Amino acid sequence: MARGIFITLEGGDGAGKTTQAQLLAARLEGFGREVLILHEPGGTRMGAAVRQILLGGGEDLDPTAELLLFEAARAQLVSKVIQPALLAEKVVICDRFTDSTVAYQGYGRGLDLARIEQLNQWATAGLLPDRTVLLDLDVKEGLERARALNGGGGDRMEQEELSFHDAVHRGFARQAAAHPQRIRVVPQMPTPGMTGQAVFDAVADLFAGDGQEAR
Amino acid sequence: MARGIFITLEGGDGAGKTTQAQLLAARLEGFGREVLILHEPGGTRMGAAVRQILLGGGEDLDPTAELLLFEAARAQLVSKVIQPALLAEKVVICDRFTDSTVAYQGYGRGLDLARIEQLNQWATAGLLPDRTVLLDLDVKEGLERARALNGGGGDRMEQEELSFHDAVHRGFARQAAAHPQRIRVVPQMPTPGMTGQAVFDAVADLFAGDGQEAR
Repeated sequence: MARGIFITLEGGDGAGKTTQAQLLAARLEGFGREVLILHEPGGTRMGAAVRQILLGGGEDLDPTAELLLFEAARAQLVSKVIQPALLAEKVVICDRFTDSTVAYQGYGRGLDLARIEQLNQWATAGLLPDRTVLLDLDVKEGLERARALNGGGGDRMEQEELSFHDAVHRGFARQAAAHPQRIRVVPQMPTPGMTGQAVFDAVADLFAGDGQEAR
Repeated sequence: MARGIFITLEGGDGAGKTTQAQLLAARLEGFGREVLILHEPGGTRMGAAVRQILLGGGEDLDPTAELLLFEAARAQLVSKVIQPALLAEKVVICDRFTDSTVAYQGYGRGLDLARIEQLNQWATAGLLPDRTVLLDLDVKEGLERARALNGGGGDRMEQEELSFHDAVHRGFARQAAAHPQRIRVVPQMPTPGMTGQAVFDAVADLFAGDGQEAR
């Protein structure tokens, strides 16, 4: 009865996506599922090269060029890694996916939302996550955490103005409101373990047939 | 009266675009025009990195990912280099542009032509060349010349099947038929100098007000 399941984790910088991906993977592996953790942009040789361009700085990127780079890396990741993993009945947990593009490039940079939706659809060949967990965190707190993790500096994205991150936060919230069945909002809890339980609860129905004894 | 003029050179591999760009630039510089020669993908730091990914091989690229990479590099080139140069009244000669995407990714790889047209428009923000010179060459002869130039090997693109290059050639011909005012076809001549004269003749009307004494 096992089938591939595609879960994405979304949210602003510093929301704890990396930690939560690992906690969720460990829990699902306890059900005997094979879990693949990916992050965008990345996961392929081409995606790693694109990540270098996008996050490395050194040249002012045109917003449309930036958008197209994200979508190119996504097309490669979906066709070469995610789709094959789902066909092999794995669980794929992806740290950022199409909703991040809507939030950052659409709401953050002000690019046309219809254009982004079209590109998302082309890049994914229509693949949607079975479930998206939006890790919600106060914008200022998230930025402070992300900066602290990066030794006080922060990469290009994190150095953007607070107003940009406010717009991104609003973008995620609107996506969640528009797709309540797919996207579940998990607010920040006092500890990563408590947040992790909430994340698991947000996806548990997808694994209703799996390893009852493991619960 | 000087204004920026945007010329693109198109054609299959081995058609002599690099040589012809240089010959044309030298001739137009004789009119006192400042000329910028570019090639796609490239011309920006990001474009050079994308070129490495596209032509370097090492990973099988999804066709949509490949298309999006070309368009990303184009968006960066247009906004950061071509548009500023045209505003500064330079002549820009670009070795490959949107027609190559239609020919290679559309006719060659079979991607949807309407999608490519849409992406071309987004990446260029609607900028069209003032004139496009299509250097026409027998497909087999062009491939042999391109392979000889590359020491018998040839890069990833040139190693494609002959049928692919036949489809590309057909794509260029159809573009020329659809846009007869913008695209002028220049067949291969016995010498690069003779081809160069035909290339110049194909753009001369754009420089009708320039340096009459130089002719």
